[in-house]
Amino acid sequence: MRLTKLVSERIKDIPSGVVAKSHNLLLRAGYIKQVSNGIYSLMPSAQRVSLKIINIIREEMNKIDGQEVLMPVVMPKELWEKSGRFYSIGQEMVRFKDRNNHDMLLGMTHEEAAVHLCQNTVKSYDQLPYMIYQIQTKFRDEARPRAGLLRVREFIMKDAYSFHTSDADLQNYYQIVYQAYQKIFKRIGMKNCIAVSSDSGMMGGKRADEFQLLVEAGEDNIVICPHCDYKANMEVATSIVEQQSYSDGELEEVFTGKAKSIDEVCNCLNIPSSQTVKAVCYAVCKDSERIVICFIRGDKEINEAKLKKIIGADIAVKDLDDTLLIKGNIGPYMLNIENATILFDNTLKNGCGLVCGANKDEYHLKNLNINRDLKVEQFYDLAKVSEGESCPICGKPLTIKKGIEVGNIFQLGTKYTKSMGMTIQDQNGQQINPIMGCYGIGVGRSLAGIVEENSDEKGIVWPLAIAPWHIYLCPIRSDDEQVKSEAEKLYKSLSNKFEVLYDDRVVSAGVKLTDSELMGIPLRVVISPRTLANSTAEITIRKTGEKVFVELDNLTDALNKIIKKLEENNE
Amino acid sequence: MRLTKLVSERIKDIPSGVVAKSHNLLLRAGYIKQVSNGIYSLMPSAQRVSLKIINIIREEMNKIDGQEVLMPVVMPKELWEKSGRFYSIGQEMVRFKDRNNHDMLLGMTHEEAAVHLCQNTVKSYDQLPYMIYQIQTKFRDEARPRAGLLRVREFIMKDAYSFHTSDADLQNYYQIVYQAYQKIFKRIGMKNCIAVSSDSGMMGGKRADEFQLLVEAGEDNIVICPHCDYKANMEVATSIVEQQSYSDGELEEVFTGKAKSIDEVCNCLNIPSSQTVKAVCYAVCKDSERIVICFIRGDKEINEAKLKKIIGADIAVKDLDDTLLIKGNIGPYMLNIENATILFDNTLKNGCGLVCGANKDEYHLKNLNINRDLKVEQFYDLAKVSEGESCPICGKPLTIKKGIEVGNIFQLGTKYTKSMGMTIQDQNGQQINPIMGCYGIGVGRSLAGIVEENSDEKGIVWPLAIAPWHIYLCPIRSDDEQVKSEAEKLYKSLSNKFEVLYDDRVVSAGVKLTDSELMGIPLRVVISPRTLANSTAEITIRKTGEKVFVELDNLTDALNKIIKKLEENNE
Repeated sequence: MRLTKLVSERIKDIPSGVVAKSHNLLLRAGYIKQVSNGIYSLMPSAQRVSLKIINIIREEMNKIDGQEVLMPVVMPKELWEKSGRFYSIGQEMVRFKDRNNHDMLLGMTHEEAAVHLCQNTVKSYDQLPYMIYQIQTKFRDEARPRAGLLRVREFIMKDAYSFHTSDADLQNYYQIVYQAYQKIFKRIGMKNCIAVSSDSGMMGGKRADEFQLLVEAGEDNIVICPHCDYKANMEVATSIVEQQSYSDGELEEVFTGKAKSIDEVCNCLNIPSSQTVKAVCYAVCKDSERIVICFIRGDKEINEAKLKKIIGADIAVKDLDDTLLIKGNIGPYMLNIENATILFDNTLKNGCGLVCGANKDEYHLKNLNINRDLKVEQFYDLAKVSEGESCPICGKPLTIKKGIEVGNIFQLGTKYTKSMGMTIQDQNGQQINPIMGCYGIGVGRSLAGIVEENSDEKGIVWPLAIAPWHIYLCPIRSDDEQVKSEAEKLYKSLSNKFEVLYDDRVVSAGVKLTDSELMGIPLRVVISPRTLANSTAEITIRKTGEKVFVELDNLTDALNKIIKKLEENNE
Repeated sequence: MRLTKLVSERIKDIPSGVVAKSHNLLLRAGYIKQVSNGIYSLMPSAQRVSLKIINIIREEMNKIDGQEVLMPVVMPKELWEKSGRFYSIGQEMVRFKDRNNHDMLLGMTHEEAAVHLCQNTVKSYDQLPYMIYQIQTKFRDEARPRAGLLRVREFIMKDAYSFHTSDADLQNYYQIVYQAYQKIFKRIGMKNCIAVSSDSGMMGGKRADEFQLLVEAGEDNIVICPHCDYKANMEVATSIVEQQSYSDGELEEVFTGKAKSIDEVCNCLNIPSSQTVKAVCYAVCKDSERIVICFIRGDKEINEAKLKKIIGADIAVKDLDDTLLIKGNIGPYMLNIENATILFDNTLKNGCGLVCGANKDEYHLKNLNINRDLKVEQFYDLAKVSEGESCPICGKPLTIKKGIEVGNIFQLGTKYTKSMGMTIQDQNGQQINPIMGCYGIGVGRSLAGIVEENSDEKGIVWPLAIAPWHIYLCPIRSDDEQVKSEAEKLYKSLSNKFEVLYDDRVVSAGVKLTDSELMGIPLRVVISPRTLANSTAEITIRKTGEKVFVELDNLTDALNKIIKKLEENNE
C-alpha cells in the first residue's frame, strides 16, 4: 500500500473529551472516524486489523468444532416475546416498527435467534453437543458511549451458542471454550488478559466468566488475589472482612445534632467508621411502593450488582422525601416501615458496641448489639470488596485492578430452550430442554484494548499478528532520484513476501519517522542516500527501538528472521 | 464435517407460497431458515458458501486497489439530510429514534457515509483515484420480500465507492470495475450473467449498469439483441418501432357507444390497435394538483420508469373521477385541462389516419393526423419495448429475458460530494468536488441466483469454487463394521486435502444418495461392502452424473484430477 493512496484522516486537534489512550491514538493515526455518538467508521488500516482479529477468532472457533452461521441483525418482536426479553430489556435495545407496523428490534445478542435456528434441526441426544457462532454487527443503545472503540453503540461481535444434554457436558465444553479464548487473546497479542468470575446479568444462567484485559483505561474493577488463583469482577467479588470488636454496653440514645453522614457522626462521637451502621435506601424499579433498606458497616459500600441479584429487579437510589424515614438517622432498631425489605450485610454479623441511627431527628443509638437488640434471620453479601481485604480462598490481601471486558462466557442453563420450547430426545426417549452456553468476544473493543496495552509515548505498537502491515518502508529524501528508484524497487520486491506500507510522500524525514511510530507498524525499513552509499537499509523494531543495518541483498532474510522471532514471542 | 453434527434443518413440507427453485431447494436442503418476512438465518452450510463468495469478491476488489473499510449500519439523520435522501427515500428506509430522541436510520446504501469517511482524508488531486469498499449487513424494508434470498429485507452486500478528479478518470475506473465484476461472477460460477444498461434510480448520476443473471426466476425484464451487443434493462431499453401508415382523411367524430378500451374500440371500428391513440393518465406524487396525460400508440405500453425520469418525481395511476376527463374517450385533439402535462410518445410521430378519444362520452375521432391536427413540440421515449421490435443499434429483432440483478455499478457524478461539501485541490490549485462512482454486489442474492442457474430435478449443483464442501463421503451400510472403519479412515485422510462432508448417519443408501444430490456437493465418494471387496470407491460427479470406480489407494489422486478439471472449466 502506498501511503499517498491510503484513505486515512490523521486528526491533529484531538477533541478535549478524548481521554482514553486508544481513542486518542486511533484518531491521531487515522484508524477510525466518528460518525455519531458511539458510532465509528473503520478506516482501511483499522479494518485490516479487525479482519486479522476476526480470522484468528474464526480459526480458533472452528478448531473447537464451531459451525459458523449468520443470524439476522433485525428481528421480529415475537421471537423475543417468548424469552420475555422484549419487555425486560430496557432502552439499550432499539425497537422500531416496520412499514407494515410490525414491532422489530436490533439484536444486541442472539440467544433467541440461536434457539430458533437450532430448533428442529437437531432432535436426538447423540447429535449433541454442538456449537454455532457468528461474527456480525450488533447495535446496543448505550447510555454513555465513551473512549472511542472501548464503549460504543455499534460493534462487531463474535457470539457463539452451544447446546448440551447435561450439565456435565456443558461444564466440559465450557472449559474447552475457556481455553480457546485464552488462545485467541494470546494470539491477537494481549499480554494481561485474565478470566474472572462475573455476574451473568441480563443473560441469566448460573455461571459466567469474563475475559478482562488489565489496563488503566478499564471501566471494570477486578478483584485479584496475587497469592492464589482468585479473580472476580467487583460485581460478584467477595472477601473476608476482619471483625472489629468494640466494648459493649446498654443501648443508649445520644444527641448528634446536625451530624448525618457517617463521617459527621464519627467526628461527633470520636469513633472509627467501622463502629457505625450505615443505612442505604433503594427504590425498586417496576414496584414503586417497595423500598429496600440495606444496613452495612459504616466503612463499607453497597455493591449494587449483588443487591440487584438478591432483589431480582433493577434498583435506584431512593429519594426519602416522600417516606417517614429520617435521612441521616435511619437505624435498624425498632424500625417499622411499610413495604420495606430490610437487608443486613455480612459485615454486621455478631457486631456489638455499634452506633446507628435512632430513627429520630438529631439522635443516634450507641452500643447496638446485633444479636441482642435485633432479630436478623439472614445476613447477605452486599458489600463492595476494598483493596487489602482478605481473599475468600486463601485469606491473603486482595488487590483491585482496572479491566476492559473483551470477552465473556455464560452457562445459560435452559432459560431459552425452555421458554422457546426447544426439545430433544434424551437417551431414555424423554423430551428434554437442551442446556445452553453462550460465548462472546468484542472485536472492536479487543482492537482498542490492544492499543491500550501496546503503545508508548510515540504511538501504537501493534503486535505482529494483527498489525495492519508488517513493514513500514520509509525512504528518506524521496526527492533523491536514486532513493526513489531504490524505494520503488524495494516496495515491489518486499510486497511479494510481506505486507508493506510504503511511505511514498515527499515530506521530511522527521514527519515520516514520527508517522511510522504513531501508526505502530512493527518493522520500519529506512533507506536514504547515506544507507544506499553502503548498499544497506536500516531496520527498526517498533517495540524495542532496536536498530540494525543490513545489506540490501540480505534484507528479506533479515526481515524474515526478525519476524520469526517476533512471532515466536507473540509480539 | 460429520453430517450427524451439522446444524441443518431439512424442511420437507415446503410452504405453498414457495415458488422459486432456489427458495425451495435452499429450504429443503437445510441451507436457510426464515426468521421473519424477508429475513433469514444462514445455516452453517449456507454460511460456508457465503464466505466463499465474499472471499472471491474481496480478492477481486483488492486486485483493483480497493481499500476495505467498515461503515456503520446505524447512521444519524444529519448525515442523510445533507444529501436530501433522509426525506426523499420512502418507507424502504428504516428510521427510528435512539434513547436520546435523535433520529437515526438503518443504512441501505452508504454514499453519505463514504463521503463522510473520505472527507478531509484525501485533499490533493494526485492522491486520486481511489476506491473504498465494505462487506456488510444492510436492511431495506422491501414492500414485497419474496422468493427466499432473491428479494429480502436484510442482506449482506459488498458496496464500493470511488473518487475521481475528472469524468475521464471515472470512465476509466468504471471499466476496470466492470471487468472485475465480470471476473467475480465468472469465478463464483455464474454462466449467464450479463451487464446491461439500467436506470440509476434513487442513486442519481448519469450512467448505470446492472449485472443480470439470466434465469427464469428473475424479476427484471432484460432486452437483448442477439445480433449485436445491445443489452438493457426494460426500464431504460429503447427500440425502433416500425411506422404503420394508414390512409388519411378529414378529422371526423364517430359514435363508439360503450367501447372504451383499445380492444373495444378496435372491435367496434374494425381497425388494428396500432391505428389507435391510447391515453394513460398519472398523478404526480407530492404534487396532488398536477396530472400527466401520456399519449401512445394503442398497441404499446407506457414504461413508467422512463416516465418517472422525465417527470422527475414518483407517479401513480390517476383516478379520473375527480377530473373533467372522460374515461375511455380521452384524446389529444382540443384537449384543454388545467394543471396537466401532456406527453406524446415517439410511436405517434408523423402518425396519420389514427383513431383517438373525442373528449366526449360515447365518441371517438377518426383520421387524426398528428402533424396536421396537433402542435406537438416534442415527442418522448415513453414506450416499453416488446419482443421482436428492432434493436436501436443494429435494427435486428430484440428478445426479452428474465434476469436477477446480482450487481450494479453507477456513475454518480458530484451529487454527494457537492451536497456534502467534499472538496479536493485540483492541478490548478482550485477546490473541486470529486466525481464518484459506486458499485454493489448482493452476496445472498448471488448465492440464490447460482442455485437458480445450477440445479436439476434432484437438487442443487454447486460450482466447485463456492460449494460448501468439495466431497460428500457416503458409506453405504454404515452398520457394517468394515465399511464404518474404512469410512472413518477415509474421512480423516481426505479431510487433510479436501473439504469433506461425511454422511455418518445409519440410514438407507437411498436416503444418503438422495440427500447428497439435494445438497449439491460437487463430488460424491461412495464405499460399500461391494466396493470394498474390490478395494475401490465410486466417485460421482454431481453435475454430469458421471461415475468412476477407483482403487482406494488412488482415491486422492483421482479426486485431485477431477477437481482440477472442474476448476479449469469453472464448474
